[in-house]
Amino acid sequence: MATIDRVLQRIDDGLEDSLSRLFDLLRIRSISTDPAFAGDCRNAAEWLAGELSGIGIPSEVRNTTGHPMVVGHAANGQAGPHALFYGHYDVQPVDPLDLWDADPFDPRIVTRDDGSRMIVARGACDDKGQLMTFVEAARAWMAENGALPLPISVLIEGEEESGSPSLEAFLTDNREELSVDFALICDTGMWDRNTPAITTMLRGMVSEEIVITAADKDLHSGLFGGAARNPNRVLARIIADLHDADGRIMVPGFYDGVAEMPADITAMWSELGFDEKAFLGGVGLSEPAGEAGRSVLEQIWTRPTCDVNGMSGGYTGEGFKTVIPSQASAKISFRLVGEQDPVAIRDSFRDFVSARVPADCAVAFTGFGCNPAVQLPMDSDTLRKGRAALTDEWGRPAAIIGIGGSIPIAGDFKTMLGMDSLMIGFGLDDDQIHSPNEKYDLQSFHKGIRSWARVLDQLAR
Amino acid sequence: MATIDRVLQRIDDGLEDSLSRLFDLLRIRSISTDPAFAGDCRNAAEWLAGELSGIGIPSEVRNTTGHPMVVGHAANGQAGPHALFYGHYDVQPVDPLDLWDADPFDPRIVTRDDGSRMIVARGACDDKGQLMTFVEAARAWMAENGALPLPISVLIEGEEESGSPSLEAFLTDNREELSVDFALICDTGMWDRNTPAITTMLRGMVSEEIVITAADKDLHSGLFGGAARNPNRVLARIIADLHDADGRIMVPGFYDGVAEMPADITAMWSELGFDEKAFLGGVGLSEPAGEAGRSVLEQIWTRPTCDVNGMSGGYTGEGFKTVIPSQASAKISFRLVGEQDPVAIRDSFRDFVSARVPADCAVAFTGFGCNPAVQLPMDSDTLRKGRAALTDEWGRPAAIIGIGGSIPIAGDFKTMLGMDSLMIGFGLDDDQIHSPNEKYDLQSFHKGIRSWARVLDQLAR
Repeated sequence: MATIDRVLQRIDDGLEDSLSRLFDLLRIRSISTDPAFAGDCRNAAEWLAGELSGIGIPSEVRNTTGHPMVVGHAANGQAGPHALFYGHYDVQPVDPLDLWDADPFDPRIVTRDDGSRMIVARGACDDKGQLMTFVEAARAWMAENGALPLPISVLIEGEEESGSPSLEAFLTDNREELSVDFALICDTGMWDRNTPAITTMLRGMVSEEIVITAADKDLHSGLFGGAARNPNRVLARIIADLHDADGRIMVPGFYDGVAEMPADITAMWSELGFDEKAFLGGVGLSEPAGEAGRSVLEQIWTRPTCDVNGMSGGYTGEGFKTVIPSQASAKISFRLVGEQDPVAIRDSFRDFVSARVPADCAVAFTGFGCNPAVQLPMDSDTLRKGRAALTDEWGRPAAIIGIGGSIPIAGDFKTMLGMDSLMIGFGLDDDQIHSPNEKYDLQSFHKGIRSWARVLDQLAR
Repeated sequence: MATIDRVLQRIDDGLEDSLSRLFDLLRIRSISTDPAFAGDCRNAAEWLAGELSGIGIPSEVRNTTGHPMVVGHAANGQAGPHALFYGHYDVQPVDPLDLWDADPFDPRIVTRDDGSRMIVARGACDDKGQLMTFVEAARAWMAENGALPLPISVLIEGEEESGSPSLEAFLTDNREELSVDFALICDTGMWDRNTPAITTMLRGMVSEEIVITAADKDLHSGLFGGAARNPNRVLARIIADLHDADGRIMVPGFYDGVAEMPADITAMWSELGFDEKAFLGGVGLSEPAGEAGRSVLEQIWTRPTCDVNGMSGGYTGEGFKTVIPSQASAKISFRLVGEQDPVAIRDSFRDFVSARVPADCAVAFTGFGCNPAVQLPMDSDTLRKGRAALTDEWGRPAAIIGIGGSIPIAGDFKTMLGMDSLMIGFGLDDDQIHSPNEKYDLQSFHKGIRSWARVLDQLAR
């Protein structure tokens, strides 16, 4: 019997124990954003360091200015590439509590009408359930084989749900220790319940607030209307100028670094059976509104965007007030893809706006973020091996997918530590992460553990 | 000695008594918007009905669904045109009370360093001081001559500062009684402290709120950005389309009924010495931003406008939220001049907007007003006589001016009773109406009384 088959058998036999350990972790109220739960966060870190050390990945709790990190290494001179596994032990707050069917920190199995079984608790999926698929896979490898098939380091964060305020400094301070060949991240989803996926594209983002100021006070439109500059109108004109009639973004140089996807990838996407009408219909829309001639998946995974997330000026309460406001403001964000340079785009955007600010108006900019897109090379060996492992486990090809949003850690690993990330996860669209009654499919947990065992096996070849 | 000279002499001799009566009225706390002062409003109405009846204009307090009206008639078969005098006895609230130097309802005379004397109290100018200039002029005429020189009716309202909710029904119910040859309104200002003015132009207004709805909920721009319609962008495009590069309004038919001013009027304005730089500089601006090639006075008195008074969509709080909002809204108003048809403009605007709402978006309109401009014909006999009277009193030609805002009663008299209004008032720009330490220049009060005496004399010729 091949080693991997024995490891998989051990995983199957030990599933109840794996579940029991996950439940122990789920009972810890590690809500990172609320200082009242700081002790719980530390407890979660210590529990994880203990588990990892216990299975043969010596780990310790490292203090930060916020919640601690867990760092471990099992890199005892094996051959093969060295991988850093990342997950996070902190969870979202649970309010509104009255929408939960039971205590969010008292995990339980709920069996659905179709016989499928769900782990229900805060963090069941995001990210305790997900990170434990890796830990349990490593445990089975260690137990069966006395060692992992390749050098592994582990970094478990405790502030992912509250903006990771300590992460950048921690990566900087421990750059040498944490810079290995690539990262493994378990915080993403499957294509559907039976189709595994590897997330290879994350859009980056430039976020800017602009404030246009005209007069130094709000004016009465009866007295000044017709003579005074109206910043609402100035702002609307700038926003309107940002796109042409075909939906292309008019900021100079914006599309530098945006490449077309390889034909085999877009062909694969068209075979995934993505239901555009259902996706848009679910929120009351019927037509993709983005760049003409692109599928919805292309629009949200592979194309950069410009959206106005907020816009405000003048009187916006009940009724009517004939004011010419002094100021108008907008929060504008750009989702980036491929090799787009966020700093160049921010600068070009600011120039674009400034050039449209007329006499007697001033504009002020506040940056809220400037992060590049993350893209795992399509010809990467790591990607090929990960895909093979998942395809073996699930009996169908793993989808190569994107996420329209960002996973900041993948960008940080790339820009700060020079590492690509292999993002594999087993979350499903209906897992209700961040919401009441968060769940994780027991199949995701079980086959997720098996998947990681196969991924480790593949990566070591 | 001519009758008018005896009337003027009587006014001069009785100034202290006139002031004392004004102070009695100013002591009444007739704040119309606050139900706690309803009894005070009735007291003010009764006080005025008593005064008017006492001087020979039999008057009564008429109930409405709100605060009562005062209506009187002294039309005992005299020759001459029949005029309806309008004023209002209600006042604005007094908060913030701590910014007043003394009790707002304890009127007093404050002497400035230059020797000028000011009546300080809530309502000193708006409108108790102003309306009493007419009442005291009528008193002097009656006392000196036993009758007014022409038939006079009086309508004093008690809800002008709270939107006149009872006015329309009252005018409808008493249309025959109140429809006379023209109205006299004392609720406007002078050009400057020594230059009288007649306000002949009031801009009308169409006020509309538009709400653009796209998706049926707010969306995450990571998940939907690039595919979902953003109503902020839709709204900005519509607002940008409302003007061309020269500041002209693009709503079809908008300029129908907009005429150029006669050359002698614009010539007079250029001689008024209006300081555009000071006017704009006072609010932090330096350049007129309206239609090219127009003076500021033309822009604010004679030209129609389109302003965005409020604009809102998405996340507008602190920080950043990458939302694609479900809705965006704007409050948009048009100031109208001349013969512009407000209903036609509202309809054309709604068509203009609807034609720009793309697939998957809906637009809803809420109207907040639809009032035509008021313009006293430049060749009107009433205007000529009023101007002659003011010129006699003040020793310099009365300016013919506009107000960029509206005085709703003048529009109501025109549209509901078919009467033009001669708008003469003695307010000054620094009277602080609606604000703490409201004042009325004693010179305005004294020469205002004398002015009305002369206007009545002229109108009877």
